[in-house]
This record gives sequence, structure tokens and C-alpha cells, in this order.
Amino acid sequence: MSQPTISRFPVPELGDLPDDIREKILAVQEKSGFVPNVFLTLAHRPDEFRAFFAYHDALMEKDGGLTKAEREMIVVATSGANSCLYCVVAHGAILRIRAKNPRLADQLATNHRKAEITPRQRAMLDFALKVALNSAAVEDADLEALRAAGFSDQDAWDIGAIAAFFALSNRLANLASMRPNDEFYLLGRLPKG
Amino acid sequence: MSQPTISRFPVPELGDLPDDIREKILAVQEKSGFVPNVFLTLAHRPDEFRAFFAYHDALMEKDGGLTKAEREMIVVATSGANSCLYCVVAHGAILRIRAKNPRLADQLATNHRKAEITPRQRAMLDFALKVALNSAAVEDADLEALRAAGFSDQDAWDIGAIAAFFALSNRLANLASMRPNDEFYLLGRLPKG
Amino acid sequence: MSQPTISRFPVPELGDLPDDIREKILAVQEKSGFVPNVFLTLAHRPDEFRAFFAYHDALMEKDGGLTKAEREMIVVATSGANSCLYCVVAHGAILRIRAKNPRLADQLATNHRKAEITPRQRAMLDFALKVALNSAAVEDADLEALRAAGFSDQDAWDIGAIAAFFALSNRLANLASMRPNDEFYLLGRLPKG
Amino acid sequence: MSQPTISRFPVPELGDLPDDIREKILAVQEKSGFVPNVFLTLAHRPDEFRAFFAYHDALMEKDGGLTKAEREMIVVATSGANSCLYCVVAHGAILRIRAKNPRLADQLATNHRKAEITPRQRAMLDFALKVALNSAAVEDADLEALRAAGFSDQDAWDIGAIAAFFALSNRLANLASMRPNDEFYLLGRLPKG
Amino acid sequence: MSQPTISRFPVPELGDLPDDIREKILAVQEKSGFVPNVFLTLAHRPDEFRAFFAYHDALMEKDGGLTKAEREMIVVATSGANSCLYCVVAHGAILRIRAKNPRLADQLATNHRKAEITPRQRAMLDFALKVALNSAAVEDADLEALRAAGFSDQDAWDIGAIAAFFALSNRLANLASMRPNDEFYLLGRLPKG
Amino acid sequence: MSQPTISRFPVPELGDLPDDIREKILAVQEKSGFVPNVFLTLAHRPDEFRAFFAYHDALMEKDGGLTKAEREMIVVATSGANSCLYCVVAHGAILRIRAKNPRLADQLATNHRKAEITPRQRAMLDFALKVALNSAAVEDADLEALRAAGFSDQDAWDIGAIAAFFALSNRLANLASMRPNDEFYLLGRLPKG
Repeated sequence: MSQPTISRFPVPELGDLPDDIREKILAVQEKSGFVPNVFLTLAHRPDEFRAFFAYHDALMEKDGGLTKAEREMIVVATSGANSCLYCVVAHGAILRIRAKNPRLADQLATNHRKAEITPRQRAMLDFALKVALNSAAVEDADLEALRAAGFSDQDAWDIGAIAAFFALSNRLANLASMRPNDEFYLLGRLPKG
Repeated sequence: MSQPTISRFPVPELGDLPDDIREKILAVQEKSGFVPNVFLTLAHRPDEFRAFFAYHDALMEKDGGLTKAEREMIVVATSGANSCLYCVVAHGAILRIRAKNPRLADQLATNHRKAEITPRQRAMLDFALKVALNSAAVEDADLEALRAAGFSDQDAWDIGAIAAFFALSNRLANLASMRPNDEFYLLGRLPKG
Repeated sequence: MSQPTISRFPVPELGDLPDDIREKILAVQEKSGFVPNVFLTLAHRPDEFRAFFAYHDALMEKDGGLTKAEREMIVVATSGANSCLYCVVAHGAILRIRAKNPRLADQLATNHRKAEITPRQRAMLDFALKVALNSAAVEDADLEALRAAGFSDQDAWDIGAIAAFFALSNRLANLASMRPNDEFYLLGRLPKG
Repeated sequence: MSQPTISRFPVPELGDLPDDIREKILAVQEKSGFVPNVFLTLAHRPDEFRAFFAYHDALMEKDGGLTKAEREMIVVATSGANSCLYCVVAHGAILRIRAKNPRLADQLATNHRKAEITPRQRAMLDFALKVALNSAAVEDADLEALRAAGFSDQDAWDIGAIAAFFALSNRLANLASMRPNDEFYLLGRLPKG
Repeated sequence: MSQPTISRFPVPELGDLPDDIREKILAVQEKSGFVPNVFLTLAHRPDEFRAFFAYHDALMEKDGGLTKAEREMIVVATSGANSCLYCVVAHGAILRIRAKNPRLADQLATNHRKAEITPRQRAMLDFALKVALNSAAVEDADLEALRAAGFSDQDAWDIGAIAAFFALSNRLANLASMRPNDEFYLLGRLPKG
Repeated sequence: MSQPTISRFPVPELGDLPDDIREKILAVQEKSGFVPNVFLTLAHRPDEFRAFFAYHDALMEKDGGLTKAEREMIVVATSGANSCLYCVVAHGAILRIRAKNPRLADQLATNHRKAEITPRQRAMLDFALKVALNSAAVEDADLEALRAAGFSDQDAWDIGAIAAFFALSNRLANLASMRPNDEFYLLGRLPKG
């Protein structure tokens, strides 16, 4: 069976995009060697595209507190819980690279209880999954549990906000039936990544 | 019992905020007569604040396609399904004003099947709720159902993207235990709104 | 869109009703200024009508133990969990009046964890929601938790029995697609109620 | 292991009960040969007892429309879905006797799709289970399906109201941890019932 | 209504079966007085039949550790949770005989919290139901709880493996719509069994 | 963090195993280059080990009807739905090799609606997932849908029986917290497999 298109919605030509968006896409291509489909599939809505990536970068490229690998752990675990193929595959690749562990993404996407993580990271993911799946039930005691595991309240916001942002991202990917690039499936699985 | 604080996380003083954020908040206050708590509770993270409201405005203040009242219907119905008090109360007020119907918000927050809406709006909300609650199961047939109800594919993106954005927003509000301003509860309920 | 009828089932004329039922309805109208639709929509079954209101009054008009406002809190929280529009709107109005709090009903109907209630009332509502949503799992430990919060066993029965009675009431209202009277939406929201 | 008590709540002595309740209980004992525990466990609340049995009899002892066996089928199927031991065992006995089928109750309590029933009864139970488990989603189309299966709107009310009444009854039994009388387990299982 | 066939799939004639399978079936008939339908409905796949009963007997006929009645308790409780009519009725009969208690099977199939069992058996069934319904969430703490209730790790494997094996068995019975033999319904209910 | 042990339960030495089991394990090692942990973690129960692999091979190594790749598709999709890490990783590897598609396993484990499969395979997996997750609701119409997609009734049994067998297998793996061998993660992902 041939592969599906990369989105149910229109995918603009690069030449038709506003300059800032085209330049961002070309910069990603320069760095990664290919253009992740999320950039192409969101580009038909320039204002939403800009807000999406500004939000993403504010949460995921932030220094201090959680490591960048830990931020990706949250993405992969919650995206697995939301059955979002694009995010599991694309962020699974990023996680493998950042954590230098070729098994971790498959573990977190399937069952975070079985993953090669520390007890502190387990507490982080338990909270993230509660925000992702049942945020109405979050209570002060959940924040206390994070503090007991060594997280600051700023960390707690990061954990919850990443889970919340990917609640948006997973839904957009499922709305568009966004196809992961073939490149992602293998990234970070070989000894040299 | 006294009311809880407006957030579990720090709420900055207006004077401590970056100029653009303080100005946005003052402009809202000027227009509405009070500052909705979402502006204050997100302000501790300026970059996330900017991205959040840029995204919000791109989806909610857009002209054409769905009416502004219909956009708020999606917010209230999906926020009710997510048990998000802040969004139900704050956007319920906006919906009552925009739809000029003092009953509609309570209906949609409780059970959209009982609301005073058209069959076309019912189709809109059925789709929005599927994106909100079970986006992994969205299929081409759901898009077909929207087309059969008279929606363009651009409308379909709007419906799905609003549901997705408030999946984020509801989770942030539940994370912070964001308290709705008292003013919202009554807005739009009296004949002159 | 025009409003739906008040019931999917026949609504008798007052003149066609048995005397005791007509008199009860007229007495309610005299006291409230209008006839809540639940009286009209259940009247087509006189024996069930009599049993329903006898049961209702035995639980809701009882003195001692729980306050009348607390009894209505149980109704609003469990009816919200059951997505019953009639009960949320009608009993929300009664709760606002009895608790002298114009915000409480909207809070409880959406997420009782965010409501302006005491810890004792929170324990009361946790138990009521368990009876409403998962009564098969009620165990002695749940009764112990009520006692620890200061409730007598007679109070515990009241809490559980009110949740149980509105499990019936919510289902009847959803069966009939019972429409709340317009009057209820605003009652108890203004300073003088 | 010895058997548990028949209720978590007080069980009055017959001699301490109001006359009408004691007489009703003695009449049941005369007819059945034993007193079903539901009469004893509800007797500590005389007004609720009276309303409960008045409601029960109005729905279950009614002539015309659904047969009495069909009414019990609804009770057993919905009580099974609610994991209510008392109602499954006690009404299972009554169903076996009324339907003259020693297998039907066990079938309906476990999985109504496997029961020895007609397609019309299957439609009846599908509707009853929707009222029992997800009444907020009942729509006009569900009523249409009943009509297509040959039910009048008065039958539809009966089906829905019985499911609603046992939503109450199941919750009371689970609240009290009401123990079924030993006699019920075997009733109606032998050729002569 | 006449009874359904015993399976949706082909049921071979005894004479057409491999010798070992026919002999096993005749031996069961000799011992029980009838052939339980599970033997007939699985016989169309001889290799699967042999593996199924070898696995069954290894878990259910084992000596030591759990009693044989306790093994059947696990079957009945998990089969009730899976709404498997064949297993509830057939193993309910076996349980009544092995436990010498005519009520226990109906209790466990409906709600194990209400059954006449010891606290140790309650811990056993809580674990079995977790394996049956949500095995992904089993954690070391669940094993600790079993040890605290007096079970060895070999017992823990037995409990979990029986729940796992009947996860298979329940699904096969539901796949085939396997009909329980009439004989099972009454077995073990009379004083002399 | 170091990796967890391969099982919560005892793992025998090869030299302590019955001959037939040791020989089977050595044969697998010879063929695969390593011993999949499922062989080691089930070996502490020889009779169950023999029955498990006899059943497995009867369903998975069968010729005709479903292809071997299709059989593995069922395993991966249902194991993903059951959050079983061992089966997702180990059978994901086998599926990649048998289907000669390095992406298919990740797709099926996350969301079978997004996988590179034919409509016929989609029907196969819809049925398998219903057997895995809600077998009590399987009805004749589900079998009809398989026939409409071109499957024979023997195929239908295979699909359902594989889903049922891995309901067992997933639960055993979750019971033991069985760890997938590192080798599986990469198998079948490179051009030459």
C-alpha cells in the first residue's frame, strides 16, 4: 500500500509562504537534513504556525530545570497516551538523540511504568499523564508529590505546560492525520545516532 | 468559606511585567472593566503568554467562516467536557454576549444535545467534542459529515483547531487551578447583557 | 433557533389532572411564581408523580443533619456529573438561593474540586459522586471517611440516598429531554436573589 | 466465612415500625414465605420506604404494555450492568418465575446479547441499558428505534422509567451493602419453580 | 424463543475428531454426565484444543498453594468482569461444587466486594481483577500486597496466570458466542449438589 | 539508570530445565542469535511453557489464510492497545521483518488508523481490537463485516483467536514485567533488516 498524503488539509508551496515562515523552514531543513512534516502541514495558517512554534520553543528549548531529554520524555509519554502517531515517531527520534538511549522512546510511548527512568522521572511522568488525561482531577497533593520528588514549582509548571501544549499538538496532528517523515523512524537508533 | 487564590503559581505585579504584556492587560481592563484572571495567571511566563494569546486571537478573533458566537460555542462545550471551571465561566459569559442568548452557555457546558442550536451547529459541536475527547479516532468520514452539514474544509480546521487550543487552555487552567473572576458569572444574563 | 418542547412525552392540561396533583402544582406556582417543568412533565403518570415528589420531599425538605443548601450541593454536583441539564439549571437556582452564593452552582456543576466549599463538604461530595458514578465500589472505608469528616451515619444515608434519588431523577429528565424553565437560569444570581 | 449483616445501616425491629409498614412487611412474608431484605433495610426511613415501594409498584405491577416478565428483564440487565448483587439475585429469582425460564436471569445479568430473548426484547434492553449507563446521550433516534421494534411511547416511558428507578434502587443497595436473602438464589431454578 | 446454536463456528462430529480429542471428550462425558460445550466448540481446531486444555489443566488442576475452589473464584470473578456468559455459568457451577457454597458464584460474578470470602481471598481477587482489566498498571506494590496477605510468589504467579488464561478463554467464548450447557445452571445449587 | 531484571519471577538456569524446553530454547538461540526473554521468563513453569508455545505456534506459524505478516499485525496492534511493552517491541521486530516495512510496527502500536495497510487489513484489525478490548460486544454483524472484507470464517477465527491468545500473553508479560531484549528494538529497521 502506498503511503498516505502528509495532511488532510492544504500544504502550501514554499514559494507561496510568508518570508519568515519560509526562512524558518529552510533553517530547519539546513539543520536536520529534511523538513519535518509538522512545519509543512501547519504552514497553511501562518499566524497559527508562528504562535505554535513560539509556544513550542518557549517550553522545549528552555534552559535550566528539566533537561531537554526530560522535556521530550513528557512529549513521548503523553503522545503515546493520546495515540498520536506523528508526535510519537518524531519526538521519539528527538528523545533517542537527546537521551542517548535507543530504547527509551519505545518504552515511554507504550508504558512509562516499564521505562529505564529514575524514580524522579517517574513522578514527573505520572504528573504529566494526569494533566494530559484527567487535568480536572489535579489537586494540590499532586504538586506536593512533585516537590517531594525534588521538583521546584517552576519545574511543575514546565511539566504541566508541556503536557498541555502537546494536548494541543496531538489533536492538531490527529485532525490533519499528519504523516511522520520516514527519516524519524530510524533516527537515534544506531550507536552513532 | 473564603475564595481560593487565583492561581497555584506566582502572579506578578503589573509593574514587574514587560511593557507589551502590561499594555495588553491594561487594554483588556479598559475594554472589559476588569482583568480576566487568565491574563494575570499566565503573565509569570512572558513568552508563553505572548504565544498563548497570539494563538487564541488567531483562532477566536478571525473573521469569516464560523461566527464569533459559534467559536465560543466550541469553547464552552469542550471546556464543559473537560470540567474546566475557568473556561466554562469566562467563555460562557462571552458566549452569552456574542450569541445574545442567556441560556446557551449553561446548556452547552452541561449537555450540547439539549442546547438551543441548529443542526449545523450540532454537527460542528459533535466534531469539536470528538477532537477534544478522542482525536485519535478522527477519520475522513468525520470531515465528510462536516461537509454534509455545509462546512468548508477551512471551517473544519477552525473547529478542530479551536477544540485543540482549548485542550491546552483547559489543562493550563486546571494546572493552575485558575479562579474565574466573579464578574463573569453574571455577564450576559440580564436583558441588556 | 426556537426552543424545544418541554418533554418528549405528553404534557397533560391542568384541568385533566387528578385533584391532588393539580393542587400541588398550583401551590408551587403560587409560591414560586411559575410552575417548574418537572411537575408538568411527570404529571402524565399520576402514581409515579406522587411517589417521586414524596421521595424528593422526604430527602430534600428534611430538617437536621445536612443543611438544605448542602442537600442541593449534592444534587448539583451529581447532576453535573450525569450531564442532566434540567437538574443542573433548576437545582442550581435553588442552591444559589439557599447557599446565598451566586457562584457555587456553576462551580459544582463543572468541577466540585474548584468550588467554594469546606473540607467537610468536599468529603460529602466525594462520597455522593462515588454513589452516583460507581456505587458498586462503595466500601466500609468510604463510610469511615465520612465519619472522619464529622458526619453521622444518618447523614451518610442522606448523602447516599440523595445521590441515588437524583440518579433516578437525572435519568427521567434525560429520558423526557425535559426543558428547564427560563426563569431558573437567572434566579439567585443577583444581589437580592 | 460467616455471612455479612444484611445492611450497613440500622435494621429496626418489626414491633418498632409504623403500622402500615409492619403490615406491608407481614403481607409480603405471608405471600413469599420470607421477608426480602430490601423491606427490612429500607424500613429505618419510613417516608422513603413508602415512596420507594409506591414508585416500585407503579412501574412493576402495572398491567398492559410490557409483560411483567419483561419488566423484570430490564431490572436484571441494568442491575447486572451496575454490579448490584441484591437486585441481580432477588429480581433474578422473580424473573425466573415470571418468565418460566431458569436460565434467563443469569444470561441477562452477565451479557444481554447472549440471552434467550426476542429481537423486540433486545431493542427494549438496549434502550434500558442506555438509560441506565449513559442517559445524557439518549436522543430522539433511540425512541424511533423502540417504535420500529413495536413499542408505543407509553412502553418507552415504562422501559426508561424502570431503568431509572433501578438506578436509584441499585445505588441504595450498594450504599447499604444490602445482602440478598439465601432463598432467592434457588427460586425458580427447579422445574416447579 | 428457541435457544441459539452452541457456537458461531463449525462443531465437528465426534467420529470425525482425532482419537486423542475424542477420547478426552468421552472421558469428560463419562465423569460429568454430559459434554461441556467448550470441548465441542474448540474441537474444530485440534492443535489449539490440545494447547488450551493442557494450559487449563496446568493452572486449574494443580495441587498446593491456592485451593481448587480459590482457582475457580478467580475464574468466576474475572469472567463476570469480562461479561463472558459461558465461563460465568460453567465455572460458576464448578465453583459451587468445589466451595460447597451455592451462593458464592453469583456473588463473585456480580460484585466480588459483596462475596462471602476471607480478606485473603479478597486480596487475591483484587489482584486477579487488576491483571484481567488493567494489567499494564500492575506494579511491584501489587505483588507486595499479595505477600502481605500471605501469598507466596508462586501463588502470585498462579493468580495472575489464571486471570490471564481466562482473558484468553473469555475472548474465545465471546468470539464463538459459546452457549453454556443447560446442566450448568443448576449444578451445585441444591443441598447435595 | 540501569536496566531492570528480565522478570519479577524466577528465571531458571538452562541446565536446570527439562530437556525438551532446553532444546527448544537452544534452537531459538541458534536461529535468532539470541534467546528472546519470553522463553526464559516462562521456563519456570514447564507445563505452562509447553502449552503456551504450542498454542502460539498453532496460531502464528499456520499456513494459508492470513499471511504471517498479517498475524503479526494483529499482535502488535492489540499489544499496543494493552500497553504491553514486551509484545510491542518483540513482535514489532518480527512484523518489520515479515512485512518488509520498517515503519509499520510503530504505526500499528500507536494508532492502527494511521498505518500503511489495506482496507482489508483495516477490517481485520478493527475486529481484532474489538475482541481484545470489548469481546462481550462481538455480534454476528462483526463477522458479517469480516466476510464483506473478503475473510472466510476460518480467517475470522484466526483473527479472533490471535487477539485472544495475546490477551493472555500481554497479561503474562505485564504480570512478570518482562523486559524485551535489546536486540529487538533495532531488528528490521535497516534496509537489509
